[in-house]
Amino acid sequence: MNDRPITLFHAPHTRSSGTLRLLEEMGVPYRLHVLDLAKGEHKRPDYLAINPMGKVPALRHGEAIVSEQGAIALYLGDLFPDTGLCPRPDDPLRADLLRWLFFYGDCVEPAVLQKAMGWEAPKASAAGYGSYEDTVAAVVGQLAKGPWFLGERFTVADGVWGSALTWLKKFGLIPATPEIAAYVERFAERPAAARVAAIDAELAAKQKGA
Amino acid sequence: MNDRPITLFHAPHTRSSGTLRLLEEMGVPYRLHVLDLAKGEHKRPDYLAINPMGKVPALRHGEAIVSEQGAIALYLGDLFPDTGLCPRPDDPLRADLLRWLFFYGDCVEPAVLQKAMGWEAPKASAAGYGSYEDTVAAVVGQLAKGPWFLGERFTVADGVWGSALTWLKKFGLIPATPEIAAYVERFAERPAAARVAAIDAELAAKQKGA
Repeated sequence: MNDRPITLFHAPHTRSSGTLRLLEEMGVPYRLHVLDLAKGEHKRPDYLAINPMGKVPALRHGEAIVSEQGAIALYLGDLFPDTGLCPRPDDPLRADLLRWLFFYGDCVEPAVLQKAMGWEAPKASAAGYGSYEDTVAAVVGQLAKGPWFLGERFTVADGVWGSALTWLKKFGLIPATPEIAAYVERFAERPAAARVAAIDAELAAKQKGA
Repeated sequence: MNDRPITLFHAPHTRSSGTLRLLEEMGVPYRLHVLDLAKGEHKRPDYLAINPMGKVPALRHGEAIVSEQGAIALYLGDLFPDTGLCPRPDDPLRADLLRWLFFYGDCVEPAVLQKAMGWEAPKASAAGYGSYEDTVAAVVGQLAKGPWFLGERFTVADGVWGSALTWLKKFGLIPATPEIAAYVERFAERPAAARVAAIDAELAAKQKGA
C-alpha cells in the first residue's frame, strides 16, 4: 500500500493547511498539488473530477481519492500505523478517535456556522447537534482530559482539532476558554507548526506574485 | 473484542433507527437501551454521561462508547469484519467508504438544515459544504454508480445513507430524483427493513401506553 504516492490537493492558509500539518506531524512522504483559489482553480473540471464539491483538502493515494478532513486523517492514520498516531481498531482509544473525528464535522462546523451567520433555530432540536452552547461545552469537557484531544497521546485527531480550534479561536468563532487557549498554544509550539507556516507563506507569496 | 456486549442507546423512529437497521443488517448480537424522549430521558444525567450532547444513537461496547452515526457505522464494521459489510483498510473501497461516511454529516445534514430553515448565506463559501445544490448533486452523482452507495457492494455506508435518504425524501428535504427514489426503494425492500419497523412500532406503542 505504502509504495503508492500520496498527493495532497492544497491551497495555502485554508482548511487543507490542517491536513498539511497532519502530514508533517506524521513525517510521511507526500507531494503537494497547489491550487490557486483566486484563479478559481478549485472549480475547474480537472479538479472537480477529484472532488465534485470543489473544495480542499483532497488526498490522492494511488487510484484512491479521499476528501473530508476527518476521513483523510483516519485514512492516513490507518495507512501508517507505525507513526503511532492512530489508535488501531483493537485499542480502547479507537472509539474516542472515531467519535471525535466525526463530531468535528457533524457538530462544530455547522454549529459555528449557525452562530457566525446569526441564524436562529426555532427550537434546539431542529439541528442534529442541538445548540452551539452544548457543542462548545462538549469540546471543552473533552479538552479537560488533555494535554491532547484524546488525552495523553497526540493522535491524528489532533491534526483535525488542533488546526480547527486554532482558526476558530483566531476568528473569535469559539470562546477562548482556558482549556481551548492552552490546547491551541500547545499545538502551536510543536515543530511541525513552523514547517507548515513556512510552506504556506512561500506558496501564498508565489501565488500573489504570479 | 467481540465477547464484550454491545448496547445501542435508542429511541424509536429517530436517527438511532438507522443504527438499529445497521445492526440488523449485520446480524450481530446487541442489546437495546430504549430512551423515552417525551419524558426527557435523553437529557438526564445518567444518559448525558454516555453522550454529553443528549442525543441518540450512542453505542456502548464494553467500556468503549461511540456516538455520531458515521463513527458507529465504522466502529461496528471494523469490529465485525466477517460480515463483509465494511471494506478493510487494504481494500480499494476504503477511501470511498471513509469519504462518504464523513460527507453525510459534514455536508448533507448542515446543507439540509440550512435549506429547511430558509437560512440565507451571504456567499456560498461561508459554509464548508458550499451549497445545498452542490451537495445534492454530489450525492446523486455517487448514487448513479449504484445499486448501493459505494457501487456493487452493500456496505455499512448504506446503513447511514439508506436510513438518511429515506427520511430526507419522506420529509421532502431532498429531491426525489430517479437515483434517490430507486435507492430508497431498494433499501426498503431488504428484509432488515421490516424487522426494524416492527421493533420500532412495538417500542413506540409501549412508550405511548406507559
